[in-house]
Amino acid sequence: MSERQPRLSRADLRVFRVIPTRWHDNDAYGHVNNVVYYSWFDTAVNAWLIENGFLDLGGSEIVGLVVETACTYFESVAFPETVEAGFAVERLGTSSVTYRIGIFREGRDQAAAQGRFTHVYVGRADQRPVPVPAALRAALADMRA
Amino acid sequence: MSERQPRLSRADLRVFRVIPTRWHDNDAYGHVNNVVYYSWFDTAVNAWLIENGFLDLGGSEIVGLVVETACTYFESVAFPETVEAGFAVERLGTSSVTYRIGIFREGRDQAAAQGRFTHVYVGRADQRPVPVPAALRAALADMRA
Amino acid sequence: MSERQPRLSRADLRVFRVIPTRWHDNDAYGHVNNVVYYSWFDTAVNAWLIENGFLDLGGSEIVGLVVETACTYFESVAFPETVEAGFAVERLGTSSVTYRIGIFREGRDQAAAQGRFTHVYVGRADQRPVPVPAALRAALADMRA
Amino acid sequence: MSERQPRLSRADLRVFRVIPTRWHDNDAYGHVNNVVYYSWFDTAVNAWLIENGFLDLGGSEIVGLVVETACTYFESVAFPETVEAGFAVERLGTSSVTYRIGIFREGRDQAAAQGRFTHVYVGRADQRPVPVPAALRAALADMRA
Repeated sequence: MSERQPRLSRADLRVFRVIPTRWHDNDAYGHVNNVVYYSWFDTAVNAWLIENGFLDLGGSEIVGLVVETACTYFESVAFPETVEAGFAVERLGTSSVTYRIGIFREGRDQAAAQGRFTHVYVGRADQRPVPVPAALRAALADMRA
Repeated sequence: MSERQPRLSRADLRVFRVIPTRWHDNDAYGHVNNVVYYSWFDTAVNAWLIENGFLDLGGSEIVGLVVETACTYFESVAFPETVEAGFAVERLGTSSVTYRIGIFREGRDQAAAQGRFTHVYVGRADQRPVPVPAALRAALADMRA
Repeated sequence: MSERQPRLSRADLRVFRVIPTRWHDNDAYGHVNNVVYYSWFDTAVNAWLIENGFLDLGGSEIVGLVVETACTYFESVAFPETVEAGFAVERLGTSSVTYRIGIFREGRDQAAAQGRFTHVYVGRADQRPVPVPAALRAALADMRA
Repeated sequence: MSERQPRLSRADLRVFRVIPTRWHDNDAYGHVNNVVYYSWFDTAVNAWLIENGFLDLGGSEIVGLVVETACTYFESVAFPETVEAGFAVERLGTSSVTYRIGIFREGRDQAAAQGRFTHVYVGRADQRPVPVPAALRAALADMRA
């Protein structure tokens, strides 16, 4: 539906996470509600950050704050399907990183939905921007689209 | 988006709905999770459609399918705050309508977050685009930003 | 539970909170999903605790941990209805408090759903039980059913 | 925390479903919110019903309505953990079925949380109780705890 963006395929992305749908992902129309896709974005990126040691919920003094997100929907998905969320780094700034993300139904190479989301790194106490930490920056640089 | 759009104020919007936050709108960072704002968009627009007779969940043969959404976040919000979601029509096409939406904290005139979302009207059975129904089109035309 | 408990009316409860439903409270059956009622319980009790100074999300060293919940459903509710959640203290122990809660549709005196939930007070750091703080205990004693 | 029930182990249950946590399953305390466990109950049971042909969201004229649920919490769980939801049939009535459900952390044999939920079968149109359909009844009889 977006004239601006071509539809993503798996080759456009670097890291994938399997996400089974849940009963109440579906809304009154019997398909996964548009809002739920954003929870999958959050889940895929934050799980990768935590599992690779870049985010410790109890201890990190620097955290990524979401400042902008967007999603375009091409095909509907319904419980009990399992999807994959794939992402890559689209833009890496001094304090910010923008991910592109695709949601794939099983066995499909074209995204059912795709979007972006941007983290700005801030000090957890004062919520002011700080540079993306060096180790994370290096990892993100390798995940460029 | 943040560079392209000025921050919305209440005068930029036409219809407002009061939405109290809920305990679990907050995420592990102690603020309302970015995903939740989209549930407020959905709620404000669909409540208006239902309460004005343009959508009947049980009976409507034509429904709005969300095909694109976006949100930019300026300030955080936390439970137990109450927010207001305000919206107006930004673009009215043959089969589609794009709303602009702002989320306002109590007593504030500048949006804490703002976004857009686009409904494409489809037949409920075949999910194919149809023109926006005439009565709804007239109402939407009066809600232009 | 349904055989053991009479259906609650408003007079059985002490504190009420208005909670508008949201679009995605409804599930694929077009009614509010059973899970959502528990989010209303959490919201009503925690809002009361915060607004009366008994819980400070940033600073409290003692917090209530939910250890048991239950709900019985009598009538369905659907978006865009507004409900009221009412509660009272059913049992006040050394470290724990059990609330009874009713969910009321507009203009109804009998609960559409009702349940209980039990908080055990723990130290936030070590998660070990501690006595219910004295000021809170006094307030809870006044809210007995 | 329940004096009445022993803590469930995997041997007490019949069917298991792997459920990865999501970022926003965690609440402001940094652990999975108590409400979310009920969404896992719903997901495990309904996925089993759909995948075994006992529930067709588009077409079934008879559906299970949730009339009672309960959960006791023993240990906290946090994103990005993956849990397993296991269930068995505790009571099979004429129109109703009560499941016992346990939530297990990886590698653990004792439930981190456990509960029950009861479906009453109703006609989708009139919402009146009907007997549990025969094929489903036979399958449920084999899943007794």
